[in-house]
Amino acid sequence: MEVDAAGRASTLCDAAVAGDRLALSRLLTAVENRTPVAEAALRRLYPAAGRAHLVGITGPPGSGKSTLVAALIAEVRAAGRPVAVIAVDPSSPITGGALLGDRVRMQAYADDGDVFIRSMASRGHAGGLASTSTAAAAVLDAAGFDLILIETVGTGQSEVEVAAAADTTVVLEAPEMGDEVQAIKAGLLEVADLVVVNKGDKPGAQRTAAQLRAMLVASAPRDPADARPRPKRPEVLITTAATGAGVPELLAALDRHRVAGRDGLSAAARLARAEAQVWAIVADRLRERLHDPVHEAATGALLEEVARHRLDPYAAADRLLAEIESD
Amino acid sequence: MEVDAAGRASTLCDAAVAGDRLALSRLLTAVENRTPVAEAALRRLYPAAGRAHLVGITGPPGSGKSTLVAALIAEVRAAGRPVAVIAVDPSSPITGGALLGDRVRMQAYADDGDVFIRSMASRGHAGGLASTSTAAAAVLDAAGFDLILIETVGTGQSEVEVAAAADTTVVLEAPEMGDEVQAIKAGLLEVADLVVVNKGDKPGAQRTAAQLRAMLVASAPRDPADARPRPKRPEVLITTAATGAGVPELLAALDRHRVAGRDGLSAAARLARAEAQVWAIVADRLRERLHDPVHEAATGALLEEVARHRLDPYAAADRLLAEIESD
Repeated sequence: MEVDAAGRASTLCDAAVAGDRLALSRLLTAVENRTPVAEAALRRLYPAAGRAHLVGITGPPGSGKSTLVAALIAEVRAAGRPVAVIAVDPSSPITGGALLGDRVRMQAYADDGDVFIRSMASRGHAGGLASTSTAAAAVLDAAGFDLILIETVGTGQSEVEVAAAADTTVVLEAPEMGDEVQAIKAGLLEVADLVVVNKGDKPGAQRTAAQLRAMLVASAPRDPADARPRPKRPEVLITTAATGAGVPELLAALDRHRVAGRDGLSAAARLARAEAQVWAIVADRLRERLHDPVHEAATGALLEEVARHRLDPYAAADRLLAEIESD
Repeated sequence: MEVDAAGRASTLCDAAVAGDRLALSRLLTAVENRTPVAEAALRRLYPAAGRAHLVGITGPPGSGKSTLVAALIAEVRAAGRPVAVIAVDPSSPITGGALLGDRVRMQAYADDGDVFIRSMASRGHAGGLASTSTAAAAVLDAAGFDLILIETVGTGQSEVEVAAAADTTVVLEAPEMGDEVQAIKAGLLEVADLVVVNKGDKPGAQRTAAQLRAMLVASAPRDPADARPRPKRPEVLITTAATGAGVPELLAALDRHRVAGRDGLSAAARLARAEAQVWAIVADRLRERLHDPVHEAATGALLEEVARHRLDPYAAADRLLAEIESD
């Protein structure tokens, strides 16, 4: 089985790196499903990754994320650069499911080998989203995509974390009629490297941008534990994704932030991604071990005791840890 | 320090169980911040918990979750029963932050000792949301709240998981004008024990309910790995939370589902909650150990190697596991 997985991974990796998009798709499916092929492929591809610019794009529903991503793709392609998109679909936590506009968008670039769009469901156990999207980005990176956009909806803990772990995080906002700016309400500004007021042709866009700039001057720095040196403050841009207005300026701002990142700005983001990935694997390995034929019965009984409130979860955790150490 | 925490926890627990709401608030703050007091308190309170009915309420933004929760509180109080609410606030992933309507709602029950409303931020590391809300529910349960409503926005992986891990999961939906039912689009139906079309006075409510009933007849069963016996199919109710219409029927349906749960329907949910809690503690313990003064340097260097793509994350995970076992 292990040998099979390694063999299959090596075939798929070679093909994906050589430009075979079907092989790339299959690798990403393996990554999503955490199969042995995914492990073998990631071990193989990881040293070749780490060069791409990962850009997280998040914002409240209705801010026009997908339209902006489509406009960015057009802009990047006009410059002759390849681009990959990981769209973290909040749809099904259980069946997954890539519905919607995704396929429509895909269609426009069906014959363009330098555009790769992949939908990933928000599913799997806790922490799965961050490690899966990081692993998917590593595969795309190794396959030669130099710019990887990760689109998430800015209303879930895991989803915001995924976008915030990119080298550059773009927070979108739509012009507001009232005085309540959604991204502020949702605390999204704190993860922003760039703030974009989209739907710039709507009334209120300039006012919302001004409000955001004022907020950002006043706002406190990030979590003090975050060692990443912070630029003076996030730039606020205005785009109209539907017409493409402001999109060249956004791409230029992304490229500037990338260059700044090379000087150390994104080191913390890279470390955070590495940590999320390693921890997810440690957790998977432990879970596997505690549910293997030797330990399954004991683990199950212990969790059952906790479910029945006959044992507290701390005592159960300590027993599981003792179990691991005594192996 | 340990002794101090145990002493403080015991004082707070005794007071909280005796009805001191300030002590209860302090315990929940400790739980949110994962302090040593929280651990000591949970170990103490856990055996007394496990009796309450946990009801998850989730749905897309705009479906009226908060209004429905307020209407349910009124209905439950009219019956003379105590009720606690954990509102998982999607606001800030970083500063946390209980903004909004919450405080306003709180106000109405400021003098009612049998209503306790608590906002919890979606923050902390992956998996934190599920284990923190489960721990908070255990504290409220031990403090005598027999019905605990857990309100989350249905657009994030973690948030949906939290609601889905309740004994009874209610999925809200607003009447749709178009033919696209949001909860279906978001895959929320699959976690539903009860489906509620709220804003029942709006045109389209009956049609949306009919559409949902048709969907539910056609829909496949849950994840086959979920051993929980599933009732024929989720009931679909119509409420108008703003006027209270349909809310007595909803409460009756919740109570019926609770009774059914006693016959085994919610055993899987209880086991899932226990597992989430135990795993979060195992992960915390391991993380602490690998970042303690003895291991910190080695762990940091290892993660740095992964961040630089000189080591793949699987190899790093295996080294960390070996480290733990060799202790």
